[in-house]
Amino acid sequence: MKKISILGSTGSIGTQTLDVVSTHKDEFQVEGLTAGTNIDLLIQQVHEYKPRKVSVATKELADRIKLQIPATTQVYYGEDGLVEIAAGTDAEMVVTAVMGSVGLRSTLAAIEAGKHIGLANKEPLVTAGHLVTSLAKNRGVQLLPIDSEHSAIFQCMNGERRNDVAGITITASGGSFRNLSRDELVNVTVEDALKHPNWSMGAKITIDSATMVNKGLEVIEAHWLFDMPYNQINVLLHPESIIHSYVEFCDSSIIAQLGNPDMRVPIQYALTYPERWKSPTQRLSLTEAGSLHFKEMDYDRFPCLRLAFECGRMGGTATTAFNAANEVAVARFLNREISFLHIEEVIQRVLDQHVNLASPDLGAIEECDLHTRKLALRL
Amino acid sequence: MKKISILGSTGSIGTQTLDVVSTHKDEFQVEGLTAGTNIDLLIQQVHEYKPRKVSVATKELADRIKLQIPATTQVYYGEDGLVEIAAGTDAEMVVTAVMGSVGLRSTLAAIEAGKHIGLANKEPLVTAGHLVTSLAKNRGVQLLPIDSEHSAIFQCMNGERRNDVAGITITASGGSFRNLSRDELVNVTVEDALKHPNWSMGAKITIDSATMVNKGLEVIEAHWLFDMPYNQINVLLHPESIIHSYVEFCDSSIIAQLGNPDMRVPIQYALTYPERWKSPTQRLSLTEAGSLHFKEMDYDRFPCLRLAFECGRMGGTATTAFNAANEVAVARFLNREISFLHIEEVIQRVLDQHVNLASPDLGAIEECDLHTRKLALRL
Repeated sequence: MKKISILGSTGSIGTQTLDVVSTHKDEFQVEGLTAGTNIDLLIQQVHEYKPRKVSVATKELADRIKLQIPATTQVYYGEDGLVEIAAGTDAEMVVTAVMGSVGLRSTLAAIEAGKHIGLANKEPLVTAGHLVTSLAKNRGVQLLPIDSEHSAIFQCMNGERRNDVAGITITASGGSFRNLSRDELVNVTVEDALKHPNWSMGAKITIDSATMVNKGLEVIEAHWLFDMPYNQINVLLHPESIIHSYVEFCDSSIIAQLGNPDMRVPIQYALTYPERWKSPTQRLSLTEAGSLHFKEMDYDRFPCLRLAFECGRMGGTATTAFNAANEVAVARFLNREISFLHIEEVIQRVLDQHVNLASPDLGAIEECDLHTRKLALRL
Repeated sequence: MKKISILGSTGSIGTQTLDVVSTHKDEFQVEGLTAGTNIDLLIQQVHEYKPRKVSVATKELADRIKLQIPATTQVYYGEDGLVEIAAGTDAEMVVTAVMGSVGLRSTLAAIEAGKHIGLANKEPLVTAGHLVTSLAKNRGVQLLPIDSEHSAIFQCMNGERRNDVAGITITASGGSFRNLSRDELVNVTVEDALKHPNWSMGAKITIDSATMVNKGLEVIEAHWLFDMPYNQINVLLHPESIIHSYVEFCDSSIIAQLGNPDMRVPIQYALTYPERWKSPTQRLSLTEAGSLHFKEMDYDRFPCLRLAFECGRMGGTATTAFNAANEVAVARFLNREISFLHIEEVIQRVLDQHVNLASPDLGAIEECDLHTRKLALRL
């Protein structure tokens, strides 16, 4: 019986994590769940999975939910609530599936408490990779990737010696607008952007796929997760999303992980590692797929990816600024305040004004994050 | 410094194994080499690699070679010579790269002597898989595959639990005639058959690729190497030969090994396992490849593969008969005695007459082999 908590249980990754739990009911016990504002779904989840503790965004929501769930489940709220679920339960593993940099403090708290991390919320690594990885190392905590690309790389490194790795290649579907030129991007709408060709995901990550910011965040995440220099990280356009990513070794051998695009596979792998358990997900048939295609990444078409590499190489608070600028810009786009192409302009302008700070501590990171958000709102 | 011997050092795998040795000169010492009749090349190899012992096909060849190499290298001949090189040197590993079932006794002798096997000669597993694998287990000897497909599967299983494997898929280029219908095969020539689209290999294996017998032998080899039931072994047409094979796990995750078609990669992996060493071989670029294609295996177009599965499932001496019939038929085709399509007819007719013997010992296997060869010469 494995005890787990899920930060962000009502989102796309959170609900799919609970799907996996339901498939192996006798093997998991859910200790804690957190949601933002979707308390109707959280209430259902409490009835089904009987966590000891839950947390929601605000005191008001917490008071409302208390009336509708058994008293055996304690209710918390706000960032302190998130930290309580992350660190204050008997869970051995915490799945971090909240959205954006809001997950930083709770992720650090979970690691500090010695809990292994099923890492879906990539922003803590993007904004504070040096703090997260060094704390995990000190506490003997495993960072188990849930992103399909990082899970692929992690699986491909199974049983291999780290020094034998020559490089990793992260595949990119190209997102909703992969067949459009830059000229054609001028008038695209929010609705267009939300139609991802392969993956069903939350709105923010779907937009990030269309701008290729998501791939940039993944590059930075991979840098920290696998201690991989940026010149050994490649990105490859692969429209079918069937090869989820691969590792090249010094002997010219490549090990790749393949599957249908179904997040429940990497989620389950993180939960069961180093074991693999049976999964009801649909098996990949390469004969049905028929063919797989590959194209070199076009950094002019997707300038945000180039910016991500630049920020990653710069280190310090550059990646924090990159991420915060993007979060604000995407929110403004989804809110119909700015155009699609303006997202990258916001990021570029923020970075033009960014004064980089090397080896920032948590306070400096949060300050940079806050400052950048204010700036990005005005650009 | 790793001490190795090579059985069949003048053939395609043998010379490429010595290429690998040359790349890492300070890491390998060649203890023994064997050749059939190509003594000119063997003499060159003796001067370059200074083995302690060599063996050739006949006494006459042995006498000729003695005059042209230093006296520090002892010369043997015939099957006893092959066994001497396999078992009578200080080599830790023996690369078995002779052609056909002639490698059986020497492979068993090397295993008996506790030497790890770099296994390129697949016929010992095909004709006597139960004897070879049980002896290897008893002697604590590793059977390290050199075939690109089996090396791929072996690499994909690195760090994984055997029980988590749901199945393996061996890819097949389709061989020289993959674009021809059965009707178009009637008048193909030896020269046509020898043009393999992807791999540069010996004549016999190139013909075996065109008939798909080679894939059949690989299926049987995989059955024994990986203790894999036949219903968990699939064959997939993949004309580019870039995905060398893959393993599917119980969680729907697939791990595949990819690379350019270059035998020096799997050869080196067998020699350096569990380490990977740098290789001067050309790295794979998926963007240059552009696309990969997959098609379901057509067992009507390639009936020899169906026969191989049937023989494998039957067990006993059926696979010995299958292999012996094919060896004779291919020799007769290369000798222009029979047509290309007659190869499979010979195999089919031999199997029609075959009386299967369960759990045969070495004597029974050799008897079946001899008997089948005689029969196959007449059909």
